[in-house]
Amino acid sequence: MSVDISELKEVKPESMLLCPLSTTAAPEQKLLCIFGTGDLGRSLGQRLLQSGYRVVYGSRRPHSCGPLPRGTKALNHEAAALSAALVFVCVHRENYDFMEALAPQLKGKVLVDVSNNLKKNLYPESNAEYLQRLIPGAHVVKAFNTLSAWSLQNGPSDANRQVYLCGNSVQAKQAVEEITTKLGFAALDKGTLSAAGELEDFPLQLFPEWRLPLRVAVGLTAFFFFYLLIREVIYGYVDQGKDISYRIMVSLANRVFPIVSLIMLSLCYVPGVIAAFLQLYRRTKYRRFPDWLDRWMLCRKQMGLIALGFAFLHVFYTLIIPIRYNVRFKIAAMTISKIKENRTSEFDTTMAWRADSYYSMGILGFGLYVLLGISSLPSVSNALSWREFSFIQSKLGYLTVFFCTFHTYLYGWDRFLHSYSYKWFTPPGFLLSLVVPSVLIVLKLLLLLPCVDRNLTRIRQGWERTDPEDGSDKALLT
Amino acid sequence: MSVDISELKEVKPESMLLCPLSTTAAPEQKLLCIFGTGDLGRSLGQRLLQSGYRVVYGSRRPHSCGPLPRGTKALNHEAAALSAALVFVCVHRENYDFMEALAPQLKGKVLVDVSNNLKKNLYPESNAEYLQRLIPGAHVVKAFNTLSAWSLQNGPSDANRQVYLCGNSVQAKQAVEEITTKLGFAALDKGTLSAAGELEDFPLQLFPEWRLPLRVAVGLTAFFFFYLLIREVIYGYVDQGKDISYRIMVSLANRVFPIVSLIMLSLCYVPGVIAAFLQLYRRTKYRRFPDWLDRWMLCRKQMGLIALGFAFLHVFYTLIIPIRYNVRFKIAAMTISKIKENRTSEFDTTMAWRADSYYSMGILGFGLYVLLGISSLPSVSNALSWREFSFIQSKLGYLTVFFCTFHTYLYGWDRFLHSYSYKWFTPPGFLLSLVVPSVLIVLKLLLLLPCVDRNLTRIRQGWERTDPEDGSDKALLT
Amino acid sequence: MSVDISELKEVKPESMLLCPLSTTAAPEQKLLCIFGTGDLGRSLGQRLLQSGYRVVYGSRRPHSCGPLPRGTKALNHEAAALSAALVFVCVHRENYDFMEALAPQLKGKVLVDVSNNLKKNLYPESNAEYLQRLIPGAHVVKAFNTLSAWSLQNGPSDANRQVYLCGNSVQAKQAVEEITTKLGFAALDKGTLSAAGELEDFPLQLFPEWRLPLRVAVGLTAFFFFYLLIREVIYGYVDQGKDISYRIMVSLANRVFPIVSLIMLSLCYVPGVIAAFLQLYRRTKYRRFPDWLDRWMLCRKQMGLIALGFAFLHVFYTLIIPIRYNVRFKIAAMTISKIKENRTSEFDTTMAWRADSYYSMGILGFGLYVLLGISSLPSVSNALSWREFSFIQSKLGYLTVFFCTFHTYLYGWDRFLHSYSYKWFTPPGFLLSLVVPSVLIVLKLLLLLPCVDRNLTRIRQGWERTDPEDGSDKALLT
Repeated sequence: MSVDISELKEVKPESMLLCPLSTTAAPEQKLLCIFGTGDLGRSLGQRLLQSGYRVVYGSRRPHSCGPLPRGTKALNHEAAALSAALVFVCVHRENYDFMEALAPQLKGKVLVDVSNNLKKNLYPESNAEYLQRLIPGAHVVKAFNTLSAWSLQNGPSDANRQVYLCGNSVQAKQAVEEITTKLGFAALDKGTLSAAGELEDFPLQLFPEWRLPLRVAVGLTAFFFFYLLIREVIYGYVDQGKDISYRIMVSLANRVFPIVSLIMLSLCYVPGVIAAFLQLYRRTKYRRFPDWLDRWMLCRKQMGLIALGFAFLHVFYTLIIPIRYNVRFKIAAMTISKIKENRTSEFDTTMAWRADSYYSMGILGFGLYVLLGISSLPSVSNALSWREFSFIQSKLGYLTVFFCTFHTYLYGWDRFLHSYSYKWFTPPGFLLSLVVPSVLIVLKLLLLLPCVDRNLTRIRQGWERTDPEDGSDKALLT
Repeated sequence: MSVDISELKEVKPESMLLCPLSTTAAPEQKLLCIFGTGDLGRSLGQRLLQSGYRVVYGSRRPHSCGPLPRGTKALNHEAAALSAALVFVCVHRENYDFMEALAPQLKGKVLVDVSNNLKKNLYPESNAEYLQRLIPGAHVVKAFNTLSAWSLQNGPSDANRQVYLCGNSVQAKQAVEEITTKLGFAALDKGTLSAAGELEDFPLQLFPEWRLPLRVAVGLTAFFFFYLLIREVIYGYVDQGKDISYRIMVSLANRVFPIVSLIMLSLCYVPGVIAAFLQLYRRTKYRRFPDWLDRWMLCRKQMGLIALGFAFLHVFYTLIIPIRYNVRFKIAAMTISKIKENRTSEFDTTMAWRADSYYSMGILGFGLYVLLGISSLPSVSNALSWREFSFIQSKLGYLTVFFCTFHTYLYGWDRFLHSYSYKWFTPPGFLLSLVVPSVLIVLKLLLLLPCVDRNLTRIRQGWERTDPEDGSDKALLT
Repeated sequence: MSVDISELKEVKPESMLLCPLSTTAAPEQKLLCIFGTGDLGRSLGQRLLQSGYRVVYGSRRPHSCGPLPRGTKALNHEAAALSAALVFVCVHRENYDFMEALAPQLKGKVLVDVSNNLKKNLYPESNAEYLQRLIPGAHVVKAFNTLSAWSLQNGPSDANRQVYLCGNSVQAKQAVEEITTKLGFAALDKGTLSAAGELEDFPLQLFPEWRLPLRVAVGLTAFFFFYLLIREVIYGYVDQGKDISYRIMVSLANRVFPIVSLIMLSLCYVPGVIAAFLQLYRRTKYRRFPDWLDRWMLCRKQMGLIALGFAFLHVFYTLIIPIRYNVRFKIAAMTISKIKENRTSEFDTTMAWRADSYYSMGILGFGLYVLLGISSLPSVSNALSWREFSFIQSKLGYLTVFFCTFHTYLYGWDRFLHSYSYKWFTPPGFLLSLVVPSVLIVLKLLLLLPCVDRNLTRIRQGWERTDPEDGSDKALLT
């Protein structure tokens, strides 16, 4: 009864020796079976037909199952299962139980589970593992579920070139890989059927790691927008009766963006510093970090990329300054008033140094920022050894923080000394943005002190205080 | 006679148990055979030698086949085939037929087909499949043909790290993969020998999906260049006798680029809207789209990336405005004339709002544009689930269209009301560029109406009008 | 005594048929063994426990080996080896010899070598191959050594999603791949155990291909910085007594960056031209290039990317010009002095053409530059055929060189005619930067002459002067 999987292999050298050349040149198209005549089954069938397969449907009511792709026929499940060595299961998980009775017909067959669930963690067990449990004699392969319906019907499109598959039988997976390749996709083996749960969760996710960083970004942006709106626009209106609301679009935005960017960049490096101090305090690396720290550490990359987005906006909002109407108007007005009042202003070399250093730091910081962003592209970071990756993300990352913080200090200069900076007794925005990075830099410098650094290195190499008699063994085993 | 493929495996645990340690420490170098002493055969032989293999050539005239790499020898084909378990076939397809006579000697051997054709679709069957048909007893593996000759001779270089291979025998492919790895390449299994045609077409292609979008881009650029040249430069010369031809380099370019960019960005989203209306009209999703629509849909990514390129140029052409000679000259001239004529101009808050909003929309649109571009990098889009990818490309894509269109409307403002905008009765360029995106946005809004959206969703879930008795089955099968 | 590897496979269809469903639904957790109770062993054990495995340690002194993760126990090596089918070897290579005595217990087991060395080329043989030689009856798999300790302990992080592995036994590798997948990593098979050396070198590398280009970049930057410092700042101070040191931050940097960028971009293309002339001179392509040329050719990509970085900085240093304090001051001062002296300056159309062309060339060059950079991202270049890649890198590359060189010529214009450009008899920086690209363009044009090009193409197709009798064979074999 058991069907040999190797029958699925298209061309067998041995059999070819026996066949006359004419038949091998035009080999018979392989027959595949699809359980389920719903939308998914029909789309898949159409696509398989277009790729040169023959398709037979298995249905409860084969004579009244609605329109099927031309050239296919519907049989009852038993007959359909017997006719092909590979069966696509396009049935909801809730209806899998009818297949239990088909166990004899499905023995030794490859069952391709393409199902998805509507929510995560709906069932204790993945659909494919459940199917394998129902029909232990079959070779269940989880595949195609990560594709969009559009791709399954029309062939590969951009985010849909890869078909992830998993299963316990290597031969069954090879049979599915072959179909995958014929349909124009690239197959990626994710191991045994125990990976099915992961594959079933994949299509349901919508940027899970980006939620926390995005919330932080939205929160910070909203806070600083209203804070600066009050200080810069409403204060001006109330105190001096001037309508400078037009500043919201560019001037205000260009204060909020760099502030949020600098804070979020620093927030990427704060958890690492906290973790180091925690390890120093606990004198061991073997105790788990608190949950909030773990979560924070896991979203550092996303946080950094959002910070880079804000930095990008800051750069372009800055670069358009000289073509803004109000800037041109003011420069012209100043020049005219200088002439009319016959004032002369001295060139201030300190001011020139400061302004140029300020811009220089900003550009260098942005350059490094972009470099950090490029190095976190999946294909780039995969090509790096972890020593290289940690060099870029840690060493160059701190250099970026330093450049950007210094850029902000140069922007501030001596403004924090003047009382006019404290409208309605609130500190200016740049001062607030400097708190986190300044603390971060100080803490990092503390960690770089030779005595602290030595301790930390020892702890991270597995050293523990309460472990004196282990010394000799340590010399032997790493 | 048949040679066991597993002999190709370098180290076998069982055999190692029997060998004294000294011999396994310095294993004998494996012998590989190359058929063909032409350029490709010699380059490949040299590279194999450098990687530690021994090489023997099979040649028709082993004694007069020209200079071969040092340390190799040439035998006749029979002797060469018998001496090694793996044969590289570096012979033109036209001369494959001589190998038919070698079938007994090649039985069970691995034949590596490295050939390419000069044109696509020259033969009905791929070279490798033809070779397999000639010598059914051998295990043909298609490999190395996607590499440049330079890489094959000198080892991996940038676009040449991956060796695609395919074949029917898993063990034969493993043997080739091992050689691939030793030569420093990464092997990527593309499935059975039926993929050979695809591999043979790969080196011949030169941006096939980019042709249509590039033609559209060149066409639009040429049209708008001459259109604006007439309106902006020639009109000025004819009507007012001014030579403003210097404007061609930056001012004119900076009008053409954003116009083409906006139109091409919209053209990425038009086919999706057309497809939706077609599905609504046909009341089914199971009929194929017309060919032109299919082709259009398949080049949306390339169209979008070219549009991004034009947007990039537009941004930098805009940012250099304040350092241009003629702009500086005019600003100075205006300031001077204001003073001389003792005019005073009022600060126009509406103007400030409009200009700043215009710039703001442009920057935000460009930021989203860049985000769309980054998400279509292969490594990024592969890491996204299709739900995430479609969120970015569809939701954020329409937001980009909206920002850029709004940016253009703000640029236009009330200019379209003034008669001076219609030089020689032609509408200004920005008005022309707004046609496609405006229509697109209106149609998209129509599709988002609840009643239309509900209908469309049902159709896309497989619903068809002519299918009433299928309801109960639908409940069971997806 | 020999343990069947297939026992490691989690679910076996045959055995499942015999088992009652309840036991397969909650399968017993697999037991893995770790040799070595040092830091690495403990971290790995903790991670394996978290992923649902049971862990037993093998130790020399099982009763005094320090704190182990909860739920694990330590046995002596013999007992530990016998208890599991897979053993992680977390022991320094120097101590591998104790395992020789365990050969009977380890026969048929999978040994996972996770070790790294402190330096490259410390031993003639890779650690994993040495281990295999010591215990020929075991199936050694090299794996996990490319991960950081942090990843091994806490699960995948960015540059650490991929686990490279290699080994001679396909089944042993599958067993390790399964564990890899369960720990959340993606396994990448690198072939037989002969690749172990490469895997062991990987974690030790820190941008090896970037060293030469970085040294060139630092050298050129330092030279031009001091050269221009003398010419632009010190000369001004000595000759005219002016303190214009503030120019260092932006003006000077913005001269050094484009000079270094242009020279390094040209240096990417010089070795290709040298190689072509060498082949023309030698009349063969079969002789190896001198070592320095090979090394130069291998770092062209890195050189180009560093050049792109400098171009990026140049662009942003240029774009901030109009918001610099000293520029605004000077423009205002000029306008004021014009009015006071009642001078009028004529609009210079040539000047406008030249300035706009200069900017236009720069932007187009930068755009192509960025395109070259994008196409050298690993995921992009992997998706290109080599014909496409060489089109971009060669054709578009030379176009980039041309645009950037022309941009510099337009910057120079007629300045090289004026004596004030030769302060202290030194040529201006832009003149020095033009030497390499100008020579490159001339040589490339020479190579494009039809007669030279024809000769070169023939040589590159394998033609050699000393090979007359081979003609007929050539027609047959490629």
